[in-house]
Amino acid sequence: MPVQRLIEEFEKLPGIGRKTAQRLAFHVLNLKEEDVIGFAKALVDAKRKTTTCSECYNLTDVDPCRICNSNKRNHDIICVVQTPRDVLAMERVREYDGLYHVLNGLISPLDGTGPDDINIKPLIKRISKGKVSEVILATSPTVEGEATAVYISKIIKPLGVKTTRIAQGISVGGDLEYADEVTLYKSLEGRREI
Amino acid sequence: MPVQRLIEEFEKLPGIGRKTAQRLAFHVLNLKEEDVIGFAKALVDAKRKTTTCSECYNLTDVDPCRICNSNKRNHDIICVVQTPRDVLAMERVREYDGLYHVLNGLISPLDGTGPDDINIKPLIKRISKGKVSEVILATSPTVEGEATAVYISKIIKPLGVKTTRIAQGISVGGDLEYADEVTLYKSLEGRREI
Repeated sequence: MPVQRLIEEFEKLPGIGRKTAQRLAFHVLNLKEEDVIGFAKALVDAKRKTTTCSECYNLTDVDPCRICNSNKRNHDIICVVQTPRDVLAMERVREYDGLYHVLNGLISPLDGTGPDDINIKPLIKRISKGKVSEVILATSPTVEGEATAVYISKIIKPLGVKTTRIAQGISVGGDLEYADEVTLYKSLEGRREI
Repeated sequence: MPVQRLIEEFEKLPGIGRKTAQRLAFHVLNLKEEDVIGFAKALVDAKRKTTTCSECYNLTDVDPCRICNSNKRNHDIICVVQTPRDVLAMERVREYDGLYHVLNGLISPLDGTGPDDINIKPLIKRISKGKVSEVILATSPTVEGEATAVYISKIIKPLGVKTTRIAQGISVGGDLEYADEVTLYKSLEGRREI
């Protein structure tokens, strides 16, 4: 039965149990057909049209992405983050107008993730082109985030580029992704050279 | 951007906040394309193909529904419930093989819902055909559920049909929908004539 099928589909999503899946499925039945089609289209579109930007490694539907390609952005500054979700969080601040670089991970010896397993080399390549004046290290203030920031700052130093670390206004041990806009803005303002 | 669009779609769902919407959207990006298409298809199918059974008022994709139309079900018994979700809950017990009747509401003077606002008349019509030997009143043991059961039992009595009420093995004040299978089964077994 179609409703059963839909409940099963919702149940497959992470953190969605049977009761929530039922609630969502019956909610969909009460929507207008055009809205349901819009939702379905958004699902397929997101999957089909999303790729990785060859410059900054953020998720995008055009390459280079809209941020890397924008002449309204300051191309002198690169903000280094762990995930595309962190880019979303930073963009919500609306104060930062530079570029990004998504590492897609953090250095973590315990998990077997070394510097070559994340996008550090492409970052160095971007910086080596000589147009960058500042690199903001905006990995989360966790053990791995801190270690990754320190590692990158050591590699960048010889290149003579100003390297800053976001202020730990964010609660230590917390996740960048879950910080509120004000805290994120404060931590961006209070960044210090390392 | 397609990912943003998808996050917004998830955010529209009841009980899904921004963070959860993001988590779900990024989860979808990691799925295989065929699975995403399957999800999208399930959404549209559920909306397009689901109607109401003209016999029992349960949700269905064929009319009469698979339960009303099945020769494996006992057509002598009708279980009266509040919502299609309650039918799903009863079906999970796997012990009940009769038919259903979905009221789509409960009598509630405070909310202005009278007997004529829910599917009581069609129920009486079904019973009047004379083939039914028992009507199980399986509305939730809340004030409204109880009142609705009493109201229906009074109307049915003159028709000479055995009328039973599920046992209050379910915690009083609780919702039928959230009862576990064992509790539901016990309450089905302990039903008593009213």
